[in-house]
Amino acid sequence: MKPYIFGIDLGGTSIKTGLFDSLTKNLIEKWEIPTRTKNHGEYIIPDIAENIKSKLSSLKIDLKDVEGLGMDVPGAVLRDGYVTRCVNLDDWGGFYPSEALEKLMGFPVKVMNDANVAALGEYAFGGGKGYQSQVFVTLGTGVGGGTIINGQILVGSHGAAGEIGHIKARFDETRVCGCGKRGCVEQYASATGVVATARLLLAKDDTPSLLRDIPKDDLDCKTIFDLAKEGDELALKCVDNMGIALGHMLASVSACIDPEVIVIGGGVAKAGEIIIDAVGKYFREAAFSVCEDTKIVLAKLGNDAGIYGCFQLIFGAQTL
Amino acid sequence: MKPYIFGIDLGGTSIKTGLFDSLTKNLIEKWEIPTRTKNHGEYIIPDIAENIKSKLSSLKIDLKDVEGLGMDVPGAVLRDGYVTRCVNLDDWGGFYPSEALEKLMGFPVKVMNDANVAALGEYAFGGGKGYQSQVFVTLGTGVGGGTIINGQILVGSHGAAGEIGHIKARFDETRVCGCGKRGCVEQYASATGVVATARLLLAKDDTPSLLRDIPKDDLDCKTIFDLAKEGDELALKCVDNMGIALGHMLASVSACIDPEVIVIGGGVAKAGEIIIDAVGKYFREAAFSVCEDTKIVLAKLGNDAGIYGCFQLIFGAQTL
Repeated sequence: MKPYIFGIDLGGTSIKTGLFDSLTKNLIEKWEIPTRTKNHGEYIIPDIAENIKSKLSSLKIDLKDVEGLGMDVPGAVLRDGYVTRCVNLDDWGGFYPSEALEKLMGFPVKVMNDANVAALGEYAFGGGKGYQSQVFVTLGTGVGGGTIINGQILVGSHGAAGEIGHIKARFDETRVCGCGKRGCVEQYASATGVVATARLLLAKDDTPSLLRDIPKDDLDCKTIFDLAKEGDELALKCVDNMGIALGHMLASVSACIDPEVIVIGGGVAKAGEIIIDAVGKYFREAAFSVCEDTKIVLAKLGNDAGIYGCFQLIFGAQTL
Repeated sequence: MKPYIFGIDLGGTSIKTGLFDSLTKNLIEKWEIPTRTKNHGEYIIPDIAENIKSKLSSLKIDLKDVEGLGMDVPGAVLRDGYVTRCVNLDDWGGFYPSEALEKLMGFPVKVMNDANVAALGEYAFGGGKGYQSQVFVTLGTGVGGGTIINGQILVGSHGAAGEIGHIKARFDETRVCGCGKRGCVEQYASATGVVATARLLLAKDDTPSLLRDIPKDDLDCKTIFDLAKEGDELALKCVDNMGIALGHMLASVSACIDPEVIVIGGGVAKAGEIIIDAVGKYFREAAFSVCEDTKIVLAKLGNDAGIYGCFQLIFGAQTL
């Protein structure tokens, strides 16, 4: 194996890049450039290529010393690397970014969905390290996920394996989810979902709460969790509501995949152990009995899960 | 590879055995002997060994021409072949049946859970043949399942992967499932579940129905499906109720695994396309949009899925 591997986490705001040492698996350096999404993301591939070349030049690293580049994208990726469409990148997609980048760089490129790659990062270096199989769930603006079994990434026949945020939590929901359907777990367990729950409860519930003192537009997920930790009853209801949706969904996932560990990451998970407690209670209520003791832990890599997963993608992870 | 492979489907009533030609993959002969379950199934292993030896002798096949024997059991089997406990075999289990049989036979033996093996059989020879990934669901007295990806069987960390019959369909159920929890899909979609639904509807619903003419103890699942096919409104409600539980559950499973095909087997599935229609409607309602077109088909091997899966277990299927 050649001495260097690049990992790129392509997001709607920034392109985050990590340079890794293949031998020690250490992250040598990480940096970010802005994502220029305009014109269906036409600058994305050229910007990445130029940035990598300039970094190699400044570090005096030869192109032929690079083993490869792994990249995650915020959208569905088929098993062969075809990217369908990335809504947050002005509908960038409809092609093979790996081929386009390989032509410009001259070394192998692999591309995969961001939640699956973050799952791989946590499995190889974070909360899932040392376990044979892992389900990862990421709680951010939406709810995503990814499954790793024996170091292999479960991609699915439509690239949709791990879209566990769109498992239905309710069938009586009138509000529409970003996916176009109603009652998805994402509507209750994402940052947006927790805030939506708070707004609904504030409107229909008389319980006294410090949440009422916050200007409507300033209400965010972090504040809700902070107040819940201080015992605010309404904030605790919001957390409990998230726990129900997520705990029951993860119980369904366990009856299906039976992973050794469930890792919870994403921005919302920064709230810490309160998440594990809220989820664990409802997970055990609904889980098939032998799966009740499945470990549920917090992710460890934070925003770096993506670049670590991209490294692992080149280091040898296979797809299922 | 040696010329012969045995496949054994160990059930609570009979031990069904198939002798296969390893080269052509053809089933040469199949036969059954009764399962003697008494004393925690102490006669099971000796009975199998004696039966196989006597068959080999009558066919003049040498022991050294047998590649191996695959066996499925009606209970949880861990990844290393340890059988926890089989309720229907008078709590037979707590050991490695493969080791016990290998000692008596002198050729390799592999053991796996019956639903997982039936899934493998359908994948290699039946409804899932030609697809890369498959979720199998079996509707019998209970509801079981199994997942095959790239020819590999998903076993799970507790041997519980594929226990999709115990995904929760409802959280307001008061009746208890065989697993000890409430609201499992099995309570609505198994043969027993469909009959239970009919009894509940008959008690609380005034809809005229031919089901009312059937003596209470004679009411069975097949009759309900037969009447539904003739347009009996109450019978159709029973089928619809099964479709809701099963369709929604399979949508959750798809968001998790995203298989190329879903195969429905087991005794209840003998009702035919009415099952596919009932399930498909609710599957598409709840599925993540790109998974809506996932193929849902009937199993093809009937009661032989087990012995075919056992053959494939020895023929080279790996576990995940």
